[in-house]
Amino acid sequence: MNGAESLVETFLENDVTVCFANPGTSEMHFVAALDQHPDMRCVLCLFEGGTSGAADGYFRMSGKVAATMLHLAPGFGNAFANLHNARKAGSGILNVMGEHATYHLAYDSPLRGDTAGISHAISDWTRTSATAADVAGDGAAGIAAARAGNGRIATLILPADTAWGEGSAPAIASATEDGDLPSEAELETVADALGRPGAALFLGGIATYGPELEAAGRIAKATGCRLIAPLFTARVRRGAGQVVLDQLPYRGELAAEVLADLHTLVCIGTPPPVNFFAYPGQPSVPTPDTCAVIDLCGRDGNVTGTLAALEKRVGAAGSEPDRRAFDLPEVAPDADLTAETACATIIRWMPEETIVVNEAVTSGLTFGPQSRTARPHDFLTTVGGAIGCCLPTAVGSAIACPDRKVLALTGDGSAMYTIQSLWTMARENLDVTVVVFNNGAYRILHHELEALGVAQVGRNARAMFDLTGPELDWMALARGHGLDAVRADSLAELNAALAHADDVAGPCLIEVVL
Amino acid sequence: MNGAESLVETFLENDVTVCFANPGTSEMHFVAALDQHPDMRCVLCLFEGGTSGAADGYFRMSGKVAATMLHLAPGFGNAFANLHNARKAGSGILNVMGEHATYHLAYDSPLRGDTAGISHAISDWTRTSATAADVAGDGAAGIAAARAGNGRIATLILPADTAWGEGSAPAIASATEDGDLPSEAELETVADALGRPGAALFLGGIATYGPELEAAGRIAKATGCRLIAPLFTARVRRGAGQVVLDQLPYRGELAAEVLADLHTLVCIGTPPPVNFFAYPGQPSVPTPDTCAVIDLCGRDGNVTGTLAALEKRVGAAGSEPDRRAFDLPEVAPDADLTAETACATIIRWMPEETIVVNEAVTSGLTFGPQSRTARPHDFLTTVGGAIGCCLPTAVGSAIACPDRKVLALTGDGSAMYTIQSLWTMARENLDVTVVVFNNGAYRILHHELEALGVAQVGRNARAMFDLTGPELDWMALARGHGLDAVRADSLAELNAALAHADDVAGPCLIEVVL
Repeated sequence: MNGAESLVETFLENDVTVCFANPGTSEMHFVAALDQHPDMRCVLCLFEGGTSGAADGYFRMSGKVAATMLHLAPGFGNAFANLHNARKAGSGILNVMGEHATYHLAYDSPLRGDTAGISHAISDWTRTSATAADVAGDGAAGIAAARAGNGRIATLILPADTAWGEGSAPAIASATEDGDLPSEAELETVADALGRPGAALFLGGIATYGPELEAAGRIAKATGCRLIAPLFTARVRRGAGQVVLDQLPYRGELAAEVLADLHTLVCIGTPPPVNFFAYPGQPSVPTPDTCAVIDLCGRDGNVTGTLAALEKRVGAAGSEPDRRAFDLPEVAPDADLTAETACATIIRWMPEETIVVNEAVTSGLTFGPQSRTARPHDFLTTVGGAIGCCLPTAVGSAIACPDRKVLALTGDGSAMYTIQSLWTMARENLDVTVVVFNNGAYRILHHELEALGVAQVGRNARAMFDLTGPELDWMALARGHGLDAVRADSLAELNAALAHADDVAGPCLIEVVL
Repeated sequence: MNGAESLVETFLENDVTVCFANPGTSEMHFVAALDQHPDMRCVLCLFEGGTSGAADGYFRMSGKVAATMLHLAPGFGNAFANLHNARKAGSGILNVMGEHATYHLAYDSPLRGDTAGISHAISDWTRTSATAADVAGDGAAGIAAARAGNGRIATLILPADTAWGEGSAPAIASATEDGDLPSEAELETVADALGRPGAALFLGGIATYGPELEAAGRIAKATGCRLIAPLFTARVRRGAGQVVLDQLPYRGELAAEVLADLHTLVCIGTPPPVNFFAYPGQPSVPTPDTCAVIDLCGRDGNVTGTLAALEKRVGAAGSEPDRRAFDLPEVAPDADLTAETACATIIRWMPEETIVVNEAVTSGLTFGPQSRTARPHDFLTTVGGAIGCCLPTAVGSAIACPDRKVLALTGDGSAMYTIQSLWTMARENLDVTVVVFNNGAYRILHHELEALGVAQVGRNARAMFDLTGPELDWMALARGHGLDAVRADSLAELNAALAHADDVAGPCLIEVVL
């Protein structure tokens, strides 16, 4: 078998069974190898940002590493932004980047570029296969690297001659090692602090859903500490019956209010809180100066073991966490359609076990607070702040969880970055309901300019913030990509649109006109 | 004035008057500064790949450096692919990449990324401003760097506090230095070789249009040598009355036939010929082993001076170059609509001084050969081979040359990479006619798989090559972005569509159904 075939067989041997792909000529042998293995699921994305975002969503919801297939240098560049998001989310992805045949690199051909350089700028692990016989082993090492630290970005660069040359037998990825645990002294310090009123666990990564969140809930109950997560978290388990966990607001000054009374904040699975941006004369972090911030376990550390050790240390084993009640937001029948009433209406409709992907930067701000007590759901956001994460992440989530509804909440501005993902939703017939909040602007930037004290907005700023002249026609954009679409100008129409989304098999786009 | 204002004033002082922008919060002070200077033209692109591709097209057609405004790390990542194309095209661009305030970089905030690392992977010049007082000088140095070597990629990274802090007076970019000229001995060797039958000049960069092409034409006439250019060249002057210059075909074996009889190939403004990709058992270059390849002047060298020196050396001053006749391709009135007849029909329609941007990877293959003797025009292609160059380059070309028709020829697959550029065409009311050849596939990849000897295409390969299930609806996609659109299923409909494109003010999309 050739190197490309040895890689595909290595994938399958290691339970890497999905490949989000946008291949080019340098990846043709890999395509040919995939073609021999119909048990590998290949999902075509019409732009590489779709592949990396989908692999991110797939990992968040399955815990499994997916492969991406990317064309050399510039193709990988197109995937960069969503690899940034995935890296910040702690998602494990193995990118396969094509490369010219080793001997062809001596020439200044059109596509020759700094493949290793761009990979190093975003990947935790980069390797270029030297020979075809190395490809299987390199692939297994890449899978192990992508699984390490709860999920990392690994990139294998595959010169064309290592794909078509004679390969070796498939290889097995080495097992993931558990990270270190905190020392007894650290645990004692933390346990003492948690026992005093005014302490909180700051949770991220895998600590915001599943058994780890349950453990944190028991610790909170036993010690009286609060549970807090960053606003931008890879996956948060929320809704009725779920452990009480609050997320910080976006604005630094509001986050500071939430944290104002704390004497100790213990970080597990996430870096300490930091404001999204710096502003003149404002602090970089929302934590009060008097608050001790303890970095107990980083995003890539032994989160599970740390929570178990802490639970044991504080004797929380028998505690029953505080849980959210079931309580849907009320919407008056004659209310106007606003971002807030639209969110409430969607929350009322949202079926149990929905996977929500929220990138509605301004319009979706109230969705989180309003949906705390909704039907149980998972809540995914753009952890790295790079716009264009929502639609691809929705694709990957839906492929990971084919039996669950995926709800993608996006602004008009943000949806345009990776709009091609709509086509993949249609192609794969995914159960995704896309809600586009159309406010005809990069509204967040209006707010940011105001935050600088600029009251008067002139021609150049308006030209860069407003998405009008012409308006984007969302019905046409959706249908252009093969999607069913409905427009809602009122709450009644939104309710009808949501009912319609239940009726259609496959994806549907709802435009909410604000 | 603050650092951002000092940068905008530095731009204007140095005749950098266009900014292709997709700003984020870290660039807000720059936006506010632009807002104070309505003489700076700000063009919003809904995706960063649109900004870099537009700046590329703008430089190719105006010879002027444009600025791009890009959000930190991942925003720059989105611009990467078209920066790759621009770099290979030798286009001068000054990217302004935002960055967190210097003191905010101590924290692991969502958007913190390797801004310098990704810039180094694609830019010829990268600098991060250290203080607000440095910004004007750094901006001027960046402009000079972008103008050097006939056009380079320069990236200025602007931490937010250098934008809002107190800046200095605007600075003037240092003048561009002419590169070295070949030695008399080199010129003599080349002149001797050109005088013997079986020699050619291989031209690229600025040598394929304008006075440099005229000089090359005189040299060819005086010596009897041929003039050849790579297929993928930044800008070629073509059509009736223009100097005879042939471009190499795509396939290496066909290019080898064109070069088979040469004893000497003299490269000016371009690296030596190289095949686009390597294939098993095939050579990397199309030049015969017996051909001497002389790298007289690289893409970034003194192309103008080298041609002038060579012209003088061979005594070509009084020669009159061979020029193309005027001869439009014939199309039978009852011919079927095929890629070839569609190209011929478009060429017959194409007005004088059209700027053609061709990224119709397979369908546009015959456009070049058929249009050699069309009305005079400029012909632009994707020099770096990164798909998604066409629509953005058309935007930039139209802004550089508002009085000329721009014709963007694109495949369905390639158009989808930077489809958002359609909106910018509508927003700026650009005179662009976009022709999408819809063959429902990445047709080039079918050919590439065949080139590997794979006859049978299975489920996974088909899934990655075909753009069907669902079909893209080009009428809807165009209208969704605010464009007028017409579909052509026959040559009669194509003729009507082209007449319609003449009638509309602003852009128009024509779908050619193959």
